[in-house]
Amino acid sequence: MISDTLDFFESRRALIARSIEALVPASGAMRGPLERIAEFCGRGKMIRGCLVFLGADSARGRSAAADEGAATTDIGLAAAAMELFQAGLLAHDDIMDRDELRRGAPTIHARYAMEARSRSETTDEALHVGESLAICLGDLCYFEGFAALTRALNGNPRYGEIVGLCASGLGEVAVAQMTDVAWGAGSAEVPEEEILAMYRGKTAHYSFSLPLAVGALAAAGGAAHGVGADIVGRLYELGEKLGVLFQIRDDELGLFGSPESTGKAPGSDLREGKKTLFRSRLLAASPAEEAPRLRALFGGEVETSAKDIDYIRSLSERLGVARSIAEMSRRAGDEARGIVRALPDLAPDTRSVLEGLVEYVTRRER
Amino acid sequence: MISDTLDFFESRRALIARSIEALVPASGAMRGPLERIAEFCGRGKMIRGCLVFLGADSARGRSAAADEGAATTDIGLAAAAMELFQAGLLAHDDIMDRDELRRGAPTIHARYAMEARSRSETTDEALHVGESLAICLGDLCYFEGFAALTRALNGNPRYGEIVGLCASGLGEVAVAQMTDVAWGAGSAEVPEEEILAMYRGKTAHYSFSLPLAVGALAAAGGAAHGVGADIVGRLYELGEKLGVLFQIRDDELGLFGSPESTGKAPGSDLREGKKTLFRSRLLAASPAEEAPRLRALFGGEVETSAKDIDYIRSLSERLGVARSIAEMSRRAGDEARGIVRALPDLAPDTRSVLEGLVEYVTRRER
Repeated sequence: MISDTLDFFESRRALIARSIEALVPASGAMRGPLERIAEFCGRGKMIRGCLVFLGADSARGRSAAADEGAATTDIGLAAAAMELFQAGLLAHDDIMDRDELRRGAPTIHARYAMEARSRSETTDEALHVGESLAICLGDLCYFEGFAALTRALNGNPRYGEIVGLCASGLGEVAVAQMTDVAWGAGSAEVPEEEILAMYRGKTAHYSFSLPLAVGALAAAGGAAHGVGADIVGRLYELGEKLGVLFQIRDDELGLFGSPESTGKAPGSDLREGKKTLFRSRLLAASPAEEAPRLRALFGGEVETSAKDIDYIRSLSERLGVARSIAEMSRRAGDEARGIVRALPDLAPDTRSVLEGLVEYVTRRER
Repeated sequence: MISDTLDFFESRRALIARSIEALVPASGAMRGPLERIAEFCGRGKMIRGCLVFLGADSARGRSAAADEGAATTDIGLAAAAMELFQAGLLAHDDIMDRDELRRGAPTIHARYAMEARSRSETTDEALHVGESLAICLGDLCYFEGFAALTRALNGNPRYGEIVGLCASGLGEVAVAQMTDVAWGAGSAEVPEEEILAMYRGKTAHYSFSLPLAVGALAAAGGAAHGVGADIVGRLYELGEKLGVLFQIRDDELGLFGSPESTGKAPGSDLREGKKTLFRSRLLAASPAEEAPRLRALFGGEVETSAKDIDYIRSLSERLGVARSIAEMSRRAGDEARGIVRALPDLAPDTRSVLEGLVEYVTRRER
């Protein structure tokens, strides 16, 4: 049930926020940067961190009590590590995409730049200082993430496996991001299979498979029984399906979502020339006479109006693109539900949260 | 003997280069970025990687044979990890400092920008693409570093301690770098004790204490006997002294070194307004009538000529600043030699390399 999933996320989100806040020291040079990181993480949905709890519950066959104490235990800290990694990637991403707004507030570099400007730097110099500090803050997020993992799990028999998974999952994202930058810079269209590989590398493996697997492996140390490769493998596969569902929805929200609920500037995906599956299929299906308008819109060459968005929507419906992507989403959803159904030894509440998760990633509004 | 140290560095450097090259896959999306990283690392001095070998030899009481096989063993891979971390920090640093030249070749972002420009991007857009790709490549260096550590040492009883040390050492550098950016942006002078704290955080702990300690801890798993906290602690302290010596020499080279041997643009430290100990003491000691010229030079407001550099040199000698810093360097050198003397169970060749290391960091020309 989707409401079970949302309740689960809400309670775990509060635990993770406390885990991250507990990392902020009372004084010293680390305090300022870590306060800023904790504040930034606190404004996020923390899906990845919540998935660590869900992976752990799935592997243990029982739901951990969402009590106060869990905030600083192994699972809470491992979840915090995932959110720190994510914060680092976003801090860097927003520099590359020149985004000024994230989670309904100024991005990390934009805020540092504003502060530098208020110290009477020139606009250009302030932007450079803002970007420089955001690069460092992102780096710090990664290092604090690995430090948190170590505090959480050093001694856990699967600790090395977990660090290795995180390092290689993050490496996959970094390379996918480089491809994304190259795509953004180039004007050539990208084949659909490359877009889908990007969805797997940048979203599915990193955002879904990794935290589910980390949670399952982390639980191996806490529970009396070990966790088999089987359950980790199945959760990893579930993550791939969820990632595709999530990304398809993300692309929809990036085009048609309301800025109030997504916290992003309207049409920002268009402005960035983002190479989405939707764009690829729409451009491929469109008749020649629509091409100039579509290319101008998707190339980010024009200011996007509500009328343009309506035009894209109705064209995608008329050409069957909306339907073909909805069909792809439906199939991935069925496969995900099939994997959840086949997971052994799930507690009933964990099963319900997993089922609701499939609905959530398909239909979320932000 | 300094020649023993240089021989040691040269042989270990070749091993580390092979360890890093072995990380480049034969194909796939990772190949291009990792080739570039290996090429970049290969042009470095690899002091940090060599110190991992030296820390291991110091802890084991014997020198490992510098044979081919060691390139892919635990110590070789741990050394490679240190060089990957360093490559990531440098890729990001050069963006912040707007440096175009590093190790005698274009910096990572400058090279990516050149390539983007050759694909007929505008200059501004090419620079942004270059910086974006260099941010990603730096991130990838960190993640590959932790992945290499895991491959090298997962199973080593001290593995968790090593990952934790690396994460916190790198975190310390990231925060020090933020302070450095803030100092560069501000025009206020910085108290000497804060400069020395920066030297410890950004250079001594990270560049010397950390790799020596990592090597000693890594050797604990390979050797029959364990490695006590004592030897790790002493190497850590030795690293602090070496770091101060290194940084003092670095500041000298940044001002007076020849661009041919340092591979840096002449006067780049002046242009960046770097807050060094030398600068701090010289400004404090100078009579009022020299202040305008000095401030213009150290503020990076003027193009620096050879005459300006001579002026700074002779002023620093006349005012006793050169002598006071040489004295500080001499004291740190004596303390470092004292620590080496007191290290127990050193093999004679390892002792000679450590003694030569103290000389090397004090006198190196690049």
